[in-house]
Amino acid sequence: MQRFLAIDAGGTSTRAVIVDASGRCLGYGRSGTGNPISSGIHAALASLGEAAEKAQQGVPGGAAALAGAAVAMAGASVQTHAHLFQERLATVGLAGDLVIESDLLAGFYSGTFHDNGYALVAGTGAVGARIKGGRLDAVGDGAGWLLGDEGSGFWLGREVVRAVVAALDGRGAPTALTALLLHEVGVSGETGERRDGRSLAQQALMNAVYALRPVELSRFAPLAFAPTGDAVAAEILDRAAAALARTLAAVLDPAVCGPLVFAGSVLTRGSAVATAVLAAVGPLPGSAGGAATATPAEDGMVGAAVVALQRSGIPVDADVHARISASLATLR
Amino acid sequence: MQRFLAIDAGGTSTRAVIVDASGRCLGYGRSGTGNPISSGIHAALASLGEAAEKAQQGVPGGAAALAGAAVAMAGASVQTHAHLFQERLATVGLAGDLVIESDLLAGFYSGTFHDNGYALVAGTGAVGARIKGGRLDAVGDGAGWLLGDEGSGFWLGREVVRAVVAALDGRGAPTALTALLLHEVGVSGETGERRDGRSLAQQALMNAVYALRPVELSRFAPLAFAPTGDAVAAEILDRAAAALARTLAAVLDPAVCGPLVFAGSVLTRGSAVATAVLAAVGPLPGSAGGAATATPAEDGMVGAAVVALQRSGIPVDADVHARISASLATLR
Repeated sequence: MQRFLAIDAGGTSTRAVIVDASGRCLGYGRSGTGNPISSGIHAALASLGEAAEKAQQGVPGGAAALAGAAVAMAGASVQTHAHLFQERLATVGLAGDLVIESDLLAGFYSGTFHDNGYALVAGTGAVGARIKGGRLDAVGDGAGWLLGDEGSGFWLGREVVRAVVAALDGRGAPTALTALLLHEVGVSGETGERRDGRSLAQQALMNAVYALRPVELSRFAPLAFAPTGDAVAAEILDRAAAALARTLAAVLDPAVCGPLVFAGSVLTRGSAVATAVLAAVGPLPGSAGGAATATPAEDGMVGAAVVALQRSGIPVDADVHARISASLATLR
Repeated sequence: MQRFLAIDAGGTSTRAVIVDASGRCLGYGRSGTGNPISSGIHAALASLGEAAEKAQQGVPGGAAALAGAAVAMAGASVQTHAHLFQERLATVGLAGDLVIESDLLAGFYSGTFHDNGYALVAGTGAVGARIKGGRLDAVGDGAGWLLGDEGSGFWLGREVVRAVVAALDGRGAPTALTALLLHEVGVSGETGERRDGRSLAQQALMNAVYALRPVELSRFAPLAFAPTGDAVAAEILDRAAAALARTLAAVLDPAVCGPLVFAGSVLTRGSAVATAVLAAVGPLPGSAGGAATATPAEDGMVGAAVVALQRSGIPVDADVHARISASLATLR
């Protein structure tokens, strides 16, 4: 039976799987950053190669030729590197063609085998998509940390820091987030001591945060979910949910009916934001009414395998999709 | 009569003035960036020296010894460089002591000779201060582009871009800002053409903006003031005014009565935001009631001269303050 290679290449890690035409996953491998935009093409090539090699090594009976490959990846301009990926993966057995697809499409197909529907992803960034006929038909947000990604992990982390900075100089309400955040960045609590009119704790917090790269502020997102009963934290989560609901609403089209897939830790770990988004967005196109429901997807790995099969001419139905999900789960 | 040196060292330009004990400004000089935090200590030293030399060269009758100097500068940690400034300025005639003071205090004294009161500055950044006994007593915001500076030029510019990005993918309302901003960054209007579900105009706009340093987004702030009658632009200005009013309110203290000084282009060029801030903040401490009023200050140059005299033991009253302002205006 023919074998295919699927790779989910992310900014922090790259995962590869070898899948056969029935949807059975045979080998799985993992490596570091695989995004050529954030990490450079050499690092990305090395990660893709390493993850694919590990996946081949895990296949019972040993590596064999691969009839096709799909790489799921963020970014609009990655197509220019397709021939480099093809060359690199040829050395680990790729005999057929390689396609590069949006990580957003892979996220969608991680939750469903349908070719129409919607995906909402809120990890470090945040983006919504309408999928029609197996292609991205409309995208909302995904505008990056400076210009958008509203409701994302970065956005939540930044709002936590902003709320604490504002609380420390009296612009914002006192919040339980202050003690949590100061502890997190290693600033010893508020003594009330000031220099040049500013509290030493606030100055130390700002110094610590500005020493980070902006996207690293996503590490503070979990504080918003801490069960403190804090009104400021609750308001941040409310605004995140409202923003994500706007992003999803912007891509809804009455003519496109299909499932909704949620991906990214803001929507899949803990239910507060996901539940609020579903309540805010109302019935999905084509539904009989009632609240929307969503299928959670851990990452884009299942969807990358779906794309690898589909683009090689192998239809993916409910059975094949279920087989990919179940067999992949045993490998990782 | 003794002469003194006053320097207003900013991120973009540095200005120096030679002032005598009566408040008469004798020579004025200007140079490039003078902030050691953003530009490095060597560039800052060179700028301070150059501006001071030019100011000395402009003095009728020629340069003479300077009995004292004040440098107004942003940033909490600049005191560590005081001895380097002292050495450098000794070569242009500084015989007495040098003091470094917050640019916020200089902004306040640019508008008044009183030793108690309030300053609200909204240029590239935004910060509010309470001044008590000639010292900074409390500071609000000034938390920088990533964590605060709400209502500042950077903040306005970023909100303009965010509103246009949101309008282009349907998350936000259509706005006249779109055509203005696309023209400003050289993106040829909306053709409606899409790739991977995203409009080409939106992608080109994001590429152009991410190629800038974040603080450069302040260049788009003037678009919010363009007389388009646009509801989205009006809402951005409303939110800027509300944020600046919160920053000012956070530093108000019933026990500290004195004038309010406005500085920075967001508050001094065009009256929309300034008027809204005054309306929102209500009567100032010690006032007889009624709306607050504010004295505009162009920059911190007058205030730096005030500080130079005061710290050398020369009292600055209404007459001296008026003389500094009037004589400086004839020099620049």
